Amino acid sequence: VEEGEEGMVDLIAGQVKELLKRNQVKQSDLPGIGVGCAGHIRHSDGVIVTTSNLEGFNNYPLRAELQSHFDIPVILDNDANAQAYGEYKFGAGKGTRDMIFVTISTGIGAGLVINGGLYRGMSGTAGEFGHTIVEPGSDLVCTCGNRGCIMALACGMALPYMFEKKLREGMETKLNMPPKFNISKINGQTLKKGLDMDDPLSKAVISDSAYYVGIGLYNLFQILNPPLIVLGGGLTNWGEFYLDKIKETFYELARDMLIDPIRIVLSEIVGDAGVIGAAALSLE
Amino acid sequence: VEEGEEGMVDLIAGQVKELLKRNQVKQSDLPGIGVGCAGHIRHSDGVIVTTSNLEGFNNYPLRAELQSHFDIPVILDNDANAQAYGEYKFGAGKGTRDMIFVTISTGIGAGLVINGGLYRGMSGTAGEFGHTIVEPGSDLVCTCGNRGCIMALACGMALPYMFEKKLREGMETKLNMPPKFNISKINGQTLKKGLDMDDPLSKAVISDSAYYVGIGLYNLFQILNPPLIVLGGGLTNWGEFYLDKIKETFYELARDMLIDPIRIVLSEIVGDAGVIGAAALSLE
Repeated sequence: VEEGEEGMVDLIAGQVKELLKRNQVKQSDLPGIGVGCAGHIRHSDGVIVTTSNLEGFNNYPLRAELQSHFDIPVILDNDANAQAYGEYKFGAGKGTRDMIFVTISTGIGAGLVINGGLYRGMSGTAGEFGHTIVEPGSDLVCTCGNRGCIMALACGMALPYMFEKKLREGMETKLNMPPKFNISKINGQTLKKGLDMDDPLSKAVISDSAYYVGIGLYNLFQILNPPLIVLGGGLTNWGEFYLDKIKETFYELARDMLIDPIRIVLSEIVGDAGVIGAAALSLE
Repeated sequence: VEEGEEGMVDLIAGQVKELLKRNQVKQSDLPGIGVGCAGHIRHSDGVIVTTSNLEGFNNYPLRAELQSHFDIPVILDNDANAQAYGEYKFGAGKGTRDMIFVTISTGIGAGLVINGGLYRGMSGTAGEFGHTIVEPGSDLVCTCGNRGCIMALACGMALPYMFEKKLREGMETKLNMPPKFNISKINGQTLKKGLDMDDPLSKAVISDSAYYVGIGLYNLFQILNPPLIVLGGGLTNWGEFYLDKIKETFYELARDMLIDPIRIVLSEIVGDAGVIGAAALSLE
């Protein structure tokens, strides 16, 4: 990140070339090079419009810059789209033509597979599920500036605020919090520890996140009526407790409006889903 | 409605036959007969699963029953899907391959056109936009049983509750309300009168409806990133005041996340959009 835009491009290109060399693979042996990147990506011309995960890179033509280093096609897409496509081709979505992949991580996003292909919408930003609003009067504000979107209420970046709010409301925690404890460092792993020691505050924050993700999935169900929703991203490491709460909210809301059974499952390509998905983009 | 399920089918079949006769058209001159019906329709086998607009008709095989009267194909779909397809073929959606039609009427629903075709999802219920939840703690409850879905907060059926709530909160109205006035009769036309006489309570209810529809459209934008949203249904007769408020909410939320311009326009097939849309289904 400290290398800046050009430095980053040189680094990526260098790494790809190094990988090719080490594996004795020629560029011409490959259909292409797929790149997944967080943020609003304009798929048509491979430009990062905005991204909150990197400094700079506003209206940055990442695809063209990378392409100048290679003779085979470079494809750039949003990382959630890449993961969705990977899951569709090689993971939990194999054999279906329609699915939604939702990643619950630092941020929250989704990729839509519709009629057997990624659906990107007008500008390439379809699937920005994390920015759908489900609590417009909330005091939790997202990095996008809006109140009460699912990211503000449930994602990794929101955890310190959610935690602090419950502390302020008088809830007690079993987590070890020395006097100079920096609450902004609270993340998914902190709360996993809390969950494992049966800490009521950690469980309350995890439950809140699950509740809003559950509402969000219900809204996706009403709009797209998919047969399959695949969940990935770091916060799913909270495990059964988290997933059960998400499903509980979903099924309480969907009830008899669910005509056919829907599958809500975990990602099957754990860990490298983003990389495998990005590579798979060149098979699209 | 009083004729019951069988009586209704006989009535529809009789009317279609009468229309054919009067216009000297043979069945074989037509590609098919399209039927649009409110409710959850399973498109694969033409069964009404549930509908809150008719008595009976639960798990009712309307398509098969109508088909038994005709030699050409009968197609049954949800009325919002039919209107969406009509608008796509002959109205505001001509020339686009992707659009969302939203009807704001007694209820609220939507039809999705994706990659040049209606998208129905797994069971045929995709586009049930009205049941997406945007205010889970609301005291307004939908006929579906959930709190704070857009229908509960913004549709024609919700107007009496919205009106009564504002009265209870102490707002005054210029509308003539004699002692035995039945508040449950308040509908879109009542509030149109109120709007025309600059009644603050009517305008507040209309603004609230617009606010929640605006949030709903913003959520649709984040999920599907469509180039075009077409609005139809009786409540759009509230005109500019209503549409401006809807757009105001939408653009306040979307801001710089809107990479390409989106068109939010009124239905161009006013009045018979449902009938024209249903007929158009046989061209799909």
